[in-house]
Amino acid sequence: MGRHSVEAMKIGILGTGHVGRALAIGWAGGSHDVVLGSRRPEDAASRAELATVREAGVPVLDPYSAVAGADVVVNATPGTVSVPLLTEIGAPALAGKALLDVAVGFREDGTLSHLEESLGEEIQRTFPDTKVVKTLCTIDAQLMVAPESLRGPSTVFLSGDDADAKRRVGGLLNDLGWPPDSLLDLGGIPTARGQEHYSLLFMGIADAIGSYGFGIQVVPPSRG
Amino acid sequence: MGRHSVEAMKIGILGTGHVGRALAIGWAGGSHDVVLGSRRPEDAASRAELATVREAGVPVLDPYSAVAGADVVVNATPGTVSVPLLTEIGAPALAGKALLDVAVGFREDGTLSHLEESLGEEIQRTFPDTKVVKTLCTIDAQLMVAPESLRGPSTVFLSGDDADAKRRVGGLLNDLGWPPDSLLDLGGIPTARGQEHYSLLFMGIADAIGSYGFGIQVVPPSRG
Repeated sequence: MGRHSVEAMKIGILGTGHVGRALAIGWAGGSHDVVLGSRRPEDAASRAELATVREAGVPVLDPYSAVAGADVVVNATPGTVSVPLLTEIGAPALAGKALLDVAVGFREDGTLSHLEESLGEEIQRTFPDTKVVKTLCTIDAQLMVAPESLRGPSTVFLSGDDADAKRRVGGLLNDLGWPPDSLLDLGGIPTARGQEHYSLLFMGIADAIGSYGFGIQVVPPSRG
Repeated sequence: MGRHSVEAMKIGILGTGHVGRALAIGWAGGSHDVVLGSRRPEDAASRAELATVREAGVPVLDPYSAVAGADVVVNATPGTVSVPLLTEIGAPALAGKALLDVAVGFREDGTLSHLEESLGEEIQRTFPDTKVVKTLCTIDAQLMVAPESLRGPSTVFLSGDDADAKRRVGGLLNDLGWPPDSLLDLGGIPTARGQEHYSLLFMGIADAIGSYGFGIQVVPPSRG
């Protein structure tokens, strides 16, 4: 891809689920240096769902090694385990880095695990020297890397306290095919709560239209 | 308005705030018989913000009288007082009626009052003989009655257990200018939670674009 690439970056993606794999393959096609982090890197060579990741030449390392050289860390782990995993990696290893947080925490009954505070806020509070940017959590993994699959333009949101980290993450979204005018900066990390809570409406819309592969477009007023 | 009017209805709107007033004026222009319910109907003649309501010929009655003859009751009260007010009116007075619920409960600190269960769900559980339809709570009061004020089409959502009540409410939305293909039926009343929780993203978008007068359009995949 790399259609709008701003700068080549070292990207360490935590999580080998749908989201981690889709993003790894999306960015590996450009000029970036991408690695995946897994708790079981020794199994990576034999896991069928990682075949496309192997074909894209993306190494699978342990989580600590995956973030060690990264400019941008991507949290694509299940939201309920994100903070424990990041804590295991340790604040020093994450300090100074941008952390693109895609995760949403769901309980076993399908309700959100983070209600009073968002997961993005919790991560930022827990790792104050890391620059958390919440984004992409309002859309499905396949759409994250294929915005052109929709019938028209749609909006992705960014929430974070650090302007430079948001700029870098915005560049990475451009690389996935999201044009600059599709990005809407909502403000500081407390606005991540809105993105995460939207998951409930997302599930309702997905059930109603019979597809997860949809976006939402912010439609502004004609005047003003 | 009455652009797509399905049938003339008696509409009792609870709440004289921005939402109640906008909806009253919107529907009063069509073929419907509209009344507003207020805890202080005796003050209605002197309240400046009710001038447009008076000009539209909409009577202001006490809450019990407002719902007494109504086919459709509209809950446009603050979400934190909705259940107490409806309880005061009483389940028998509301039984068998469609209840269009627009309300979202916010605490004083700006967070949602209903997290584990939505307000719409609580109302439906509290009044099992009333047919609750959650809708319009994802947009601002002025936009509710002026969907043509946007740069393009946008989506409104419906959640409720009763198909006939949703059909009647859908007709009332058509009357406000929302075309049939702008309505998305999300399913049963538990899906109201998604509409209500979207309020947090709504506030973030409003701050980001500097306007409350925006909609969101569901953008489906090109294929499928």
